[in-house]
Amino acid sequence: MACRSRLAPIARRMSTPGGLLSRTALSACHPGSPVVLRRCLSSTQTTCLRASAPCQGKYTTDSYPEIKRDQRFSQITADHVAYFRELLGKDSALIDGVTADVSADDMEPYNCDWMRKYRGHCKLVLKPGSTQEVSKILKYCNDNMLAVVPQGGNTGLVGGSVPVFDEIVISMSRMNQIRSFDEVSGVLITDAGVVLEVADQFLAEKGYLFPLDLGAKGSCHIGGNVSTNAGGLRLLRYGSLHGNVLGIEAVLPNGTIVEDLCTLRKNNTGYDLKQLFIGGEGTIGMITAVSIQCPQRGKAVNVAFLGADSFEKIQQAFREAKSQLSEILSAFELMDSYSQDMVHRVRQNKRPLEGEHPFYCLIETTGSNSDHDAAKLERFLEDVMEKEIISDGVVAQDETQIKSLWSQREGITECVGHFGGTYKYDVSIPLKDLYRLVDETRERIETAGLKGDTDEFPVVEVVGYGHMGDCNLHLNVAVRRYDKRVEEVLEPFVYEWIGKINGSISAEHGIGIAKKKYLGFSRNDAMIDLMKQIKNLYDPVSFLCYGY
Amino acid sequence: MACRSRLAPIARRMSTPGGLLSRTALSACHPGSPVVLRRCLSSTQTTCLRASAPCQGKYTTDSYPEIKRDQRFSQITADHVAYFRELLGKDSALIDGVTADVSADDMEPYNCDWMRKYRGHCKLVLKPGSTQEVSKILKYCNDNMLAVVPQGGNTGLVGGSVPVFDEIVISMSRMNQIRSFDEVSGVLITDAGVVLEVADQFLAEKGYLFPLDLGAKGSCHIGGNVSTNAGGLRLLRYGSLHGNVLGIEAVLPNGTIVEDLCTLRKNNTGYDLKQLFIGGEGTIGMITAVSIQCPQRGKAVNVAFLGADSFEKIQQAFREAKSQLSEILSAFELMDSYSQDMVHRVRQNKRPLEGEHPFYCLIETTGSNSDHDAAKLERFLEDVMEKEIISDGVVAQDETQIKSLWSQREGITECVGHFGGTYKYDVSIPLKDLYRLVDETRERIETAGLKGDTDEFPVVEVVGYGHMGDCNLHLNVAVRRYDKRVEEVLEPFVYEWIGKINGSISAEHGIGIAKKKYLGFSRNDAMIDLMKQIKNLYDPVSFLCYGY
Repeated sequence: MACRSRLAPIARRMSTPGGLLSRTALSACHPGSPVVLRRCLSSTQTTCLRASAPCQGKYTTDSYPEIKRDQRFSQITADHVAYFRELLGKDSALIDGVTADVSADDMEPYNCDWMRKYRGHCKLVLKPGSTQEVSKILKYCNDNMLAVVPQGGNTGLVGGSVPVFDEIVISMSRMNQIRSFDEVSGVLITDAGVVLEVADQFLAEKGYLFPLDLGAKGSCHIGGNVSTNAGGLRLLRYGSLHGNVLGIEAVLPNGTIVEDLCTLRKNNTGYDLKQLFIGGEGTIGMITAVSIQCPQRGKAVNVAFLGADSFEKIQQAFREAKSQLSEILSAFELMDSYSQDMVHRVRQNKRPLEGEHPFYCLIETTGSNSDHDAAKLERFLEDVMEKEIISDGVVAQDETQIKSLWSQREGITECVGHFGGTYKYDVSIPLKDLYRLVDETRERIETAGLKGDTDEFPVVEVVGYGHMGDCNLHLNVAVRRYDKRVEEVLEPFVYEWIGKINGSISAEHGIGIAKKKYLGFSRNDAMIDLMKQIKNLYDPVSFLCYGY
Repeated sequence: MACRSRLAPIARRMSTPGGLLSRTALSACHPGSPVVLRRCLSSTQTTCLRASAPCQGKYTTDSYPEIKRDQRFSQITADHVAYFRELLGKDSALIDGVTADVSADDMEPYNCDWMRKYRGHCKLVLKPGSTQEVSKILKYCNDNMLAVVPQGGNTGLVGGSVPVFDEIVISMSRMNQIRSFDEVSGVLITDAGVVLEVADQFLAEKGYLFPLDLGAKGSCHIGGNVSTNAGGLRLLRYGSLHGNVLGIEAVLPNGTIVEDLCTLRKNNTGYDLKQLFIGGEGTIGMITAVSIQCPQRGKAVNVAFLGADSFEKIQQAFREAKSQLSEILSAFELMDSYSQDMVHRVRQNKRPLEGEHPFYCLIETTGSNSDHDAAKLERFLEDVMEKEIISDGVVAQDETQIKSLWSQREGITECVGHFGGTYKYDVSIPLKDLYRLVDETRERIETAGLKGDTDEFPVVEVVGYGHMGDCNLHLNVAVRRYDKRVEEVLEPFVYEWIGKINGSISAEHGIGIAKKKYLGFSRNDAMIDLMKQIKNLYDPVSFLCYGY
């Protein structure tokens, strides 16, 4: 039982007064405010950016001069605005920069993504309040050659939710009602504009959980999650939205309402067309509501934060966790030391572990019996420490500590972006090669003389982290400013690297505008042709998500 | 602890010498043969039927005189046969009834489904050995207006895998190789023609399992499972194929090979086109290989067989099982007394429980720690007996008893069909109304004077069972012979009933020829139009799966 005694003091360290896992460490962003603390934990970057920093970035038209506005599309006129104003019935349902002056603070949150990488010239935002209104808007835009962009919580990372030119933004923010929940079957039906965290909190009260969780949960919309087939933190346990979404309601480009809000787990009656909309990024229709199978909420949640000497050891720990924790394993997250140094540098917090380790992992278990789960986790931890797979570790003792440990992982995105901007790559790579991409990218950046501690160097650091349980790596390059030289070192290198090992250039963030020209590294020509057929079938005018 | 002592003797009853759970009870079908025993447990009805009983049923063209052969399609000529013979390279790769005489024993297994309800006039069976051969066959048939039907294990229940007229059968039986398995990620790649049980046994040796299990596992092909989006016994635990299948290789009607054998859990690079083929029933292309995420095999499996006084009590037991067994619950199967009487009547076996009960359920748990799982199950059983939700129950003590208890559930299909035939309805119904359909159907059959103990009555019994965890009911009407009067009482009644409560007319078996005209009870016109668009996009000639 040597290991047990080794682990126990480590675990106790978590609850020492003023220890690293008190809330003070987390409240650096917005000191003293518990609401903000929750938001920080949820990484609701969009909200923060919208409130404090109107988009100052370059226009996408400047960054991507090769993308030209299709002159078939009409300019928005006062007549168009008048039609939409009458349709929507009230002033608060549209932001009209066509016939009136609108402040940048009002318009920019819709024109600009939260990373400030993509910025459009939109002058009209529509906020329909019903599926029928969405239908009428799309039909009118289709008939009148007005290009549009659907927008959910605008937390996407590939420029897919903001306009490039003067496309009309259709924001789903007013369609934010939970329609129904069946406490026996666990089937939830919600509007597309419901914020993920709101839905999950609603379900928590019923003893259920939303089978998707991700850093942006405080801002992202369920419609956007489904449209981009978001994966997130617990896909390992609850599976993909392709399996969990039972039905959708959507509006096609011609205004047809697809009513397919099935609430049955099994329904083999013809082609499962909803699947095209899951991950379709809004390019063939707009999802207006979703029915989804929700699992029961585990009564017992445990989180451990472990350090290891190498990526090989982290892989060993993952294999042991799959085998020993099996049905209760709900997350296995990877973090390299660079990402954790970044969190420490920005937040000035005490680290969870005393020493420094090249790699860290966060392991979460969720189950129905706390004694059984604790016993399984303890035995697993004893085993991996005895075999010297893991060098050190802590186990959270209460809900606060669980949140604190998670914030070491969820806070990376925010802290990496702290210095000015981030080049983000969200990729799938076979496990054994997963981290090699980070090392090779760092080497290239260093060789090019682009990384350093002072302002003259654009790059601050190259970090790697991600959902290891799903072979999903987030490669992030923290920069002081976006710089063409950095881009040239990164691209197409990263995509070519992924292509060679049959990885995916977009594990969960989608294609958007950012990855359109690199799609060929993950999809062959025949597949791309088949996708074009589908786009052409549903949106022959190609007015929906024009720009990418 | 009163309940504990009540349960213990019940559990012990399972292992008494000569008890109901010995293998003798199961070997009635093929006494003395362990191989056959395995087959019986797997309900490999197709194999049995093919070997012992050439199809004697009516031709589908007689049963469905309204379906006419489209005269655009060519008759198969000696030239066509010569092309295929040269392409496939050897005589064993085709069965040629066009230019030669072929015995009924050779041809009928491909012309006739295992329930002997559907029978075609096929004269040519092709057995390609590679994806390239499938591609050349489909292209040739498309170009030469030859209608075809893809066929896997031919275990379907809706007439979708057999021809109606003289369509060419393309059997996948020769494409039966496991291509690769990754022991770290759990991703399996197999040819479409691999038998489900073969794949699962292969995976068992590696500590994994195929995330699908169903009665016909000893005969059905993985390609057919995916094409029909099979659900089976453990969807409750492992989810649907839409979530687990990572990639497919398929051949489109024009011969294009879709290479999308992705092995990554996350890959958001464009429309997820493979999903159209999952459940597409082979109507827009033929799946030739599948990559699928397989979970680790649970080390501990427990099975309990319980009796209850009413369907309401079974629902209560289900709610308690979801809550208390949670992450280890792997199956919750419903059986009514009529189905169990039928098993007893055919097999003359001793029943698992001493008394008779109006309803039974089989509960299976699968987990990584046998002590923990046994403790959870024991506490659950104590609880449901103490609350008088369950009247009596047994728990299997070893692997043999587990198989025996499962055979009480899996054997229903075979025993119901013992008397001559079965009208089968595989439907999804919201849980509270699930069993009401069985009662109402029995009442209609009785009122019509069609049910009785002697030969003059066509109907033997109306039974209900199914995957209660998925709200999936199997309504079976056991008959001595197929009879128009029975059909008229059953249809459209059953489908109308399902339509009214927003159920699904096909939970897992698909549409095929059997349910085509009833699709409107589960799908609205707009959805059906969208499906037609997809069919027309991929197969404008409509030569694939012609007949339905």
